[in-house]
Amino acid sequence: MSQFSLADILAAKKRIAGTIHRTPVLTSSTINHLCNKEVYFKCEHLQKTGSFKSRGALNAHFRSGNFGQALAWAAQLFSIDCTVVAPDNAPYSKIDAMEGYGAEIVKCPAHERDALSKKLQKENNWELIEPFDDYRVMAGQGTVGVELVEQVPDLDAILVPVGGGGLCSGISTAIATLKPNIKVFCVEPEGKELEKSFIAKTRLWDVNAFPVDTIADGVRVIAVGERNFPQLLSYCEHSVLTVNDNDITNAMKLIYSRLKQAVEPTGAMCFAALLKYPILLSSYKKVGLILSGGNFDWKILQF
Amino acid sequence: MSQFSLADILAAKKRIAGTIHRTPVLTSSTINHLCNKEVYFKCEHLQKTGSFKSRGALNAHFRSGNFGQALAWAAQLFSIDCTVVAPDNAPYSKIDAMEGYGAEIVKCPAHERDALSKKLQKENNWELIEPFDDYRVMAGQGTVGVELVEQVPDLDAILVPVGGGGLCSGISTAIATLKPNIKVFCVEPEGKELEKSFIAKTRLWDVNAFPVDTIADGVRVIAVGERNFPQLLSYCEHSVLTVNDNDITNAMKLIYSRLKQAVEPTGAMCFAALLKYPILLSSYKKVGLILSGGNFDWKILQF
Repeated sequence: MSQFSLADILAAKKRIAGTIHRTPVLTSSTINHLCNKEVYFKCEHLQKTGSFKSRGALNAHFRSGNFGQALAWAAQLFSIDCTVVAPDNAPYSKIDAMEGYGAEIVKCPAHERDALSKKLQKENNWELIEPFDDYRVMAGQGTVGVELVEQVPDLDAILVPVGGGGLCSGISTAIATLKPNIKVFCVEPEGKELEKSFIAKTRLWDVNAFPVDTIADGVRVIAVGERNFPQLLSYCEHSVLTVNDNDITNAMKLIYSRLKQAVEPTGAMCFAALLKYPILLSSYKKVGLILSGGNFDWKILQF
Repeated sequence: MSQFSLADILAAKKRIAGTIHRTPVLTSSTINHLCNKEVYFKCEHLQKTGSFKSRGALNAHFRSGNFGQALAWAAQLFSIDCTVVAPDNAPYSKIDAMEGYGAEIVKCPAHERDALSKKLQKENNWELIEPFDDYRVMAGQGTVGVELVEQVPDLDAILVPVGGGGLCSGISTAIATLKPNIKVFCVEPEGKELEKSFIAKTRLWDVNAFPVDTIADGVRVIAVGERNFPQLLSYCEHSVLTVNDNDITNAMKLIYSRLKQAVEPTGAMCFAALLKYPILLSSYKKVGLILSGGNFDWKILQF
């Protein structure tokens, strides 16, 4: 645990400050009324490249979906060549954006990405950058949490979407030191079963398991990373909030119609969880939600 | 002209300040690059009730689409009964919202609204509130312009969508006094032909003409109001920017994918015009656009 702490996150915050947006926090009186809480939406879909991933990519000195975009963007900033190994079911909007930032795209089935990335790295003598299982990336993502409690200091709870756990490990580590009274909840897609690993206190996912089948492409990776898991185990609530595609699309529609914000499915997961677990969350009156990204195909707009 | 001036708008600003949001101004480096300008989006779709109409409705001491919502909202604030005469092709989202604010809805064909409103008024001894042709409403809408130049003082031009002209008459009047060097451009839907009335220096629309056939339901009213037209004639550029449904939906998609903002068709008109008239607008390097509203049916989201 001593390998990763608030100090890393604060250093990252300083390092990336000039390039990264301090994203706004939005509220809606209709949503507050609906939830019987004060709900604060941290707008990382308005971050550079449309997600919080820019924070980690930049902090790692560019050392993939949203991370691929963020990585390509950061590489272009420093005129470094960048190749992204992307799953063949990635949204067009994300692939287009990576190409727009000058990156080379190699597509393959999702479960072959790790092997292909390592093969390309060896053949070309490239540096391989992991999207979440990297302390520099975790530190960058953790800056979202520092910023949020600067903007809304007296929250009772923060809900964070969890795929590989880069964002949540960063945020929960920051909050544990800065604001230990704030509870951090993990929000996962159905099929991930993070709670079972919390109870076992060890990562139970099969290395050959297929990705989670969810509309939320940002959290399809099934296993929380090696470096991410211990932080989540230590600093997050062990009751995990689980949402399905229906919960997510309903939340997206409400965010669209009430907050007027275009978020991707992963970005709507926290609000979906807030709506789904009113009893579990009843004692938390001021809740922060991370709208993690907005990179969804505009083809979902029906014209 | 002396009947309506900046003083009215500043008084309105003071009157409505506690209840109305000071909406943010958003920018996108991708859009700036695309347009070869600095583009500032004034986010009135994030205003109370999802459009700038709340400003005028509140200032008129509730004295209709978006105006209907704004009116119902303002009436509820003061516990006043409110009946909205709405066109039968109004979006469901707007009708739902009006009912949510406690208003009674009466539907009729668009071209019969005036007559039915006046009939109901007489029968019930109600007060009739016009959506744009009212100095109090114009003063409220004008506060958008005052706010925008407080937020971005050195603009070269501002583009404003024009239906009845409530918003544009307010903004152009404010700008003419506060920042006379800033040019104000009217953006209209195809079929309105505002330019012909500017050239004739008089309102040429037939009182029995049907509404404009456009996806932008906020500007379907064909004629600019009696009180609004003189302000537009005096304070706006006489070159009118005309956009069609295709221009508008393309702009909506870009706003959705790049700004991550859910705006209604009328709200995307200014950006549509900016993209359509690059030569006409080439000398204006810092341009403010009004994202006028966001009240569009979420049914356009394809799930």
